[in-house]
Amino acid sequence: MPVFVVVGHRVNTDGLFTLNDLAGSTGRLDILLRCVNSTFFLSNDIRRDVEIHLVLLGESDAPKTIRFDGSKIKYLNPDERSTAALVKNALMQTIGDDEEMNTSPGVYVSRRGLKEVLESFRGRKFVHLMETGTSIQNSDIDDDLVVVLGGQYDLTEDEENMVKDHDPLPISLGPNKLHANHCITIFLNQLDINKL
Amino acid sequence: MPVFVVVGHRVNTDGLFTLNDLAGSTGRLDILLRCVNSTFFLSNDIRRDVEIHLVLLGESDAPKTIRFDGSKIKYLNPDERSTAALVKNALMQTIGDDEEMNTSPGVYVSRRGLKEVLESFRGRKFVHLMETGTSIQNSDIDDDLVVVLGGQYDLTEDEENMVKDHDPLPISLGPNKLHANHCITIFLNQLDINKL
Repeated sequence: MPVFVVVGHRVNTDGLFTLNDLAGSTGRLDILLRCVNSTFFLSNDIRRDVEIHLVLLGESDAPKTIRFDGSKIKYLNPDERSTAALVKNALMQTIGDDEEMNTSPGVYVSRRGLKEVLESFRGRKFVHLMETGTSIQNSDIDDDLVVVLGGQYDLTEDEENMVKDHDPLPISLGPNKLHANHCITIFLNQLDINKL
Repeated sequence: MPVFVVVGHRVNTDGLFTLNDLAGSTGRLDILLRCVNSTFFLSNDIRRDVEIHLVLLGESDAPKTIRFDGSKIKYLNPDERSTAALVKNALMQTIGDDEEMNTSPGVYVSRRGLKEVLESFRGRKFVHLMETGTSIQNSDIDDDLVVVLGGQYDLTEDEENMVKDHDPLPISLGPNKLHANHCITIFLNQLDINKL
């Protein structure tokens, strides 16, 4: 099952934001919501065999990770606002340090940071997005894939090193630097094509 | 310059909707807003050499077409709500039958329907998305491209025939049927790659 991990460096972690100003009041949660959309939505269907982890590092209760599991998800709609409501609900729960709490079908919250999330996928095929990498169209990526992306900002040097610690495959999507949600769409479409 | 045309069969045309319920109160304008995002946004940049036409056919003043021109656009943000405000503002203007009114930098509204929009691109290289088409990765599509997509619903038979009247190239993106915004991302990335 392919896994996407997206880091929201400034994204709110206490759930105290309004759904009416997602781009302004959440530390750019809207960017991560679009990644959830790209991960799961097909025309009239949902991808069941994929997972996305949103690693949130903003005020005032960081780190927290929201995990969406396609095999169990319900009540997911493609618009930003309704997915934001699922995230807000997860962030407002009281959770312990070592707990992963199920807050709605297929949605989970924990106090994991990036390093712990990546560690849970040790041994899988990590990807490092780089301009000089192998073109994705010539790669033989499969569902064992773990892709780590920055949301509003690029991964920091420390975060890059956490990825490099998993011996990642260097992959290029093309000449332009793309938003994380667009990267996810391209990865999933290539996995679809590679299965033909 | 590549052109995307997306048909919103039920999307509101009088601008009398709330920005707080884009998925519920607009006839699924949210789907078309995500197409605008896919069309223009690069990481930290905007694609200037691309255009998208949203052909709106819902209540109560149809048809109307909102055109976004990347070469002139300003005040475009990647979240759904802020783009919805640009569309709402355009729809609320009083426009004549043969007029195209500029309602904010790079945003235009007219009373054109699908047939007139497509006619304005007569002679360009139209695409017809079909499962049995040539794989996009083996195609030699270039910036002369005109892609016509359905939003919430597939194109009707009449609309398909309007596209076929432009001698379109049959293209397949992969085995899954994708949302229009995801199709746009894949087309633009392929154009980027074909320029390498």
